[in-house]
Amino acid sequence: MADDAKSPLDRPGQVPEVAVSRLPQYVRALSQLLADRVEVVNSQQLGEMLQITSPQIRKDLSYFGRFGKQGRGYSVRHLLVELQGILGLDHGWNVAVVGVGRRGRAILSYPWFTPAGFRLVAAFDGDPETVGQQVGELTVRPIEELDWAVRELQVRIAIVAVPSNQTQQVIDRLVGCGVRALLNYAPVMPLVRKGVRVQNIDPVLALQSMTCYLASEGLGPD
Amino acid sequence: MADDAKSPLDRPGQVPEVAVSRLPQYVRALSQLLADRVEVVNSQQLGEMLQITSPQIRKDLSYFGRFGKQGRGYSVRHLLVELQGILGLDHGWNVAVVGVGRRGRAILSYPWFTPAGFRLVAAFDGDPETVGQQVGELTVRPIEELDWAVRELQVRIAIVAVPSNQTQQVIDRLVGCGVRALLNYAPVMPLVRKGVRVQNIDPVLALQSMTCYLASEGLGPD
Repeated sequence: MADDAKSPLDRPGQVPEVAVSRLPQYVRALSQLLADRVEVVNSQQLGEMLQITSPQIRKDLSYFGRFGKQGRGYSVRHLLVELQGILGLDHGWNVAVVGVGRRGRAILSYPWFTPAGFRLVAAFDGDPETVGQQVGELTVRPIEELDWAVRELQVRIAIVAVPSNQTQQVIDRLVGCGVRALLNYAPVMPLVRKGVRVQNIDPVLALQSMTCYLASEGLGPD
Repeated sequence: MADDAKSPLDRPGQVPEVAVSRLPQYVRALSQLLADRVEVVNSQQLGEMLQITSPQIRKDLSYFGRFGKQGRGYSVRHLLVELQGILGLDHGWNVAVVGVGRRGRAILSYPWFTPAGFRLVAAFDGDPETVGQQVGELTVRPIEELDWAVRELQVRIAIVAVPSNQTQQVIDRLVGCGVRALLNYAPVMPLVRKGVRVQNIDPVLALQSMTCYLASEGLGPD
């Protein structure tokens, strides 16, 4: 933190979730700037990169500390390191993948988890034909091993790519083993208890959040 | 709309984007309820399904009209139809896919676009080996045909699954042909002009938006 040793997230309700959800985008943009050897950026430039207004950016960042000097912009490297710390990205996370169908295979081969600090440490599937296969760097384990392996590896994050009708059951089981954050690829909305987080990766929902604007502009089909 | 023939989205700035972005989740939840033959739902039940507080749900919906009666909840079917109308889901949308690598193939085989009203009408790739292949229900077209085909088919929505270093260029070209909403699968943040919308499907960003909570609860790895 810039001004405060304690995370603002320790005081629940103080930081809107939507502000937290934008921080990874700031990290992404700052990483791009750093790669391009840009040293200083202001909220307007960041805003143009991310399609977010600059007052919104300043407000989001203000929840977490004071990062820039009035009129001088932010140090790209400094802000990046601070935000990575806030997001818990300054150390690695063990991640389990459940479901090694076509989608699970794509996940296990996705090259951007490791550089971002997410180590895929175990993959599980219920199909005896799939178990034992080498996918990416992992050998697929039988679903029966899930409970002890997730506990043994202290996995807190899981990616679930099982069919819709198995999703809730698999997520309940993972949560029972200590998983606290889940990425769900099935087009269903699983229920979890308070304190557990789910993000749904769902291209249909993403498209639908844009069509309303097209429709309101009269760009819809006949 | 319930009370108003004009979309509230015609009056820009009145409806927060984050409220709009939650509407597809309400549609998803209401569809599940309808399938389960639930006829009436209140904001508390919806909130439990979606991990959103009930005051937030009532506020989100209030931007778009008056849908429920105090103390009696919402008619599932009525609210679903209204929200589908607001989101422009009451008619079909033509969608083009650019990039038919492993990810593009998964997109073209994804079974949930069509039931949601998104018709995949064209797929393009720059690789001569890929062009002409049948993937899902489409024959892959050469990228050279993109401009006239997108105009001819009046495509307003595109899904872009090309490598990171080609993403911006492909998106610029699509926007030049009339595309106004884009789903981007590369881990970069493309720039678009005002009035054009991009949603990034990015599992790393989704994971990162959850790790901060884990870190603040001391659940991080050593």
